[in-house]
Amino acid sequence: MAERRPTIADVARRAGVSKGTVSFALNGRPGVAAATRERILEAAEALNWRPNHRARSLSVSRAFALGLVIARDPSLLGSDPFFPTFIAGVETVLAERGQALVLQVAGGGQAETEGYRRLAQDGRVDGVFLTDLRRHDPRITLVDALGLPAVTLNRPDVPSPFPAVCLDDRPGIAAVVDHLVGLGHTRIAHVAGPDDFLHGHGRRKAFLDALAAQGLPAGRVEVSDFTASGGTAATRRLLDAPDPPTAIVYANDLMAIAGINVAHGLGISVPARLSVAGFDDTELSAHLHPPLTTVRTDVFGWGQVAARSLLALIDGESTGDVELEPARLVVRRSTAPPSAPSETSPATPYPTPEES
Amino acid sequence: MAERRPTIADVARRAGVSKGTVSFALNGRPGVAAATRERILEAAEALNWRPNHRARSLSVSRAFALGLVIARDPSLLGSDPFFPTFIAGVETVLAERGQALVLQVAGGGQAETEGYRRLAQDGRVDGVFLTDLRRHDPRITLVDALGLPAVTLNRPDVPSPFPAVCLDDRPGIAAVVDHLVGLGHTRIAHVAGPDDFLHGHGRRKAFLDALAAQGLPAGRVEVSDFTASGGTAATRRLLDAPDPPTAIVYANDLMAIAGINVAHGLGISVPARLSVAGFDDTELSAHLHPPLTTVRTDVFGWGQVAARSLLALIDGESTGDVELEPARLVVRRSTAPPSAPSETSPATPYPTPEES
Repeated sequence: MAERRPTIADVARRAGVSKGTVSFALNGRPGVAAATRERILEAAEALNWRPNHRARSLSVSRAFALGLVIARDPSLLGSDPFFPTFIAGVETVLAERGQALVLQVAGGGQAETEGYRRLAQDGRVDGVFLTDLRRHDPRITLVDALGLPAVTLNRPDVPSPFPAVCLDDRPGIAAVVDHLVGLGHTRIAHVAGPDDFLHGHGRRKAFLDALAAQGLPAGRVEVSDFTASGGTAATRRLLDAPDPPTAIVYANDLMAIAGINVAHGLGISVPARLSVAGFDDTELSAHLHPPLTTVRTDVFGWGQVAARSLLALIDGESTGDVELEPARLVVRRSTAPPSAPSETSPATPYPTPEES
Repeated sequence: MAERRPTIADVARRAGVSKGTVSFALNGRPGVAAATRERILEAAEALNWRPNHRARSLSVSRAFALGLVIARDPSLLGSDPFFPTFIAGVETVLAERGQALVLQVAGGGQAETEGYRRLAQDGRVDGVFLTDLRRHDPRITLVDALGLPAVTLNRPDVPSPFPAVCLDDRPGIAAVVDHLVGLGHTRIAHVAGPDDFLHGHGRRKAFLDALAAQGLPAGRVEVSDFTASGGTAATRRLLDAPDPPTAIVYANDLMAIAGINVAHGLGISVPARLSVAGFDDTELSAHLHPPLTTVRTDVFGWGQVAARSLLALIDGESTGDVELEPARLVVRRSTAPPSAPSETSPATPYPTPEES
């Protein structure tokens, strides 16, 4: 299967231009007419020619790769659908442009800082995605000082020179609270993500704000960690309390699913005696019994838009901040009006998911 | 935060050797005494010196990166804990060595082939991981022809020049079947992964072989796709049949969880009327009600060993095939002796996971 690899000279010959023009056209430099650039791209395509990455990198000092540093406990990464889905969205854009994604999983703290330093100093990437923003996130200053272009997922709470690609969680949480209040719930609790993450903090605030807007007192909030075991423990604390909630809003589906199972184990039927709502709309959530009321965000699309914004920034065209369609409520069967403790849930056949 | 970056000359001065010796030592070339290499590494560490990746790449024609091409439907990637966990294991090894992971998510078919070609022709990586091996996998020949070193996860069913890092699924599946037969089940079904994957095919064969070894007739097998919706549909087909199984062995936890929910929806209690076993031991599986009997594999460790093997191969030291500890049974509460259809499960409090 060894093949003679086409060279830039082959492309130039086929397009009827000089090698220099091919190089200029393919590096996106100005001064090449659109029709000529088109002809060169067609010739490259026809010959299945690809620029030699390393030579291309040197000539224009670009890595043609983007970086993502994930600072989560590696052993817990498999539980969270966010990163694989986000990465898949990023990849669909990079694949079209012949760019690569360089990934580092760092344990947090010093290891995370080192991750960005290495990406910058090794010249491995032309820019990075800043995900999982934290309160007063030190990475904004760090990445700026390293000279790396970046986009942030949502806006940091510190001044930032980087464009933000925003998907607002809060309308989804507010809609869950409004939905539960509409069903008649007044004792609604929240199992939150870690409070140092802006998304965990933001969902918690959105929960409390929505209750206040409905004229209800603040609900109990249990801060947890997005894992099934964290969701289990938080749910037990809520249900063991003297005045347990009739509805729980979870900051992700995984904790909500664990919570439903805690309730089942305690003989508390969902939704007859406890309404449960998640966040993420993971694939499993529609296939639970009862199917989970949750909040949907287009994480795949978020990855695509973030990749396009970062590539535009690297090319010198700042797109400014981008607002994506906010999170929205998906009503299924895990939420219902609150009822007296003696009532049990009817043995319904497996229901069809219903969405709002 | 701008810093004067230490140079190779600083390291050489501190270690009391020439710049050439530093370069030789750090590129792992022979001819540098162990004590000298040690002194150089200490000097580099003390100065917080890192080789310039691009310059290093050119001088020894190495990318100092490994590649992983994932050919799965991007929108389903978030459901499967395998890749994030495997990648986390790989990353722990790469981080220590200052190497990077370059990731591509390809849709399969031509896009996948293109993914490997691009990694090779762009010189972006020094080697690749071959995961999700398929029957008669064409990537073995492709990657060999591209001149890329590789390790395979498990052994392909075609001749391969690459070391394999093996984690045998089959003892786990056989142990599940033996466990169910020991409980008294004779009508055991299997919800399998896609048959073109060697792991899906292997788990199915292990299931049938274990039944045969127990002197039981072949159980019904529903081929599915590792997703919750696939697991839901397969479980319905099995439970709607005239002679439904009393136990179902699933090829992953996600399908098993969906299957438990189908059973609940049909009023079939687990494990009183249906025993269910999964595969993966995902974090959620211990927090279900009932907690899921499943099969545990050390995917994180698999990533670590695969990374070490691939780096060794790239350095010219073939380690040969490596056998990891095989998959093993984790008995929890979703499996129990079969019983008459009228019996219902006792309302037990949430039980503590119990492992074999």
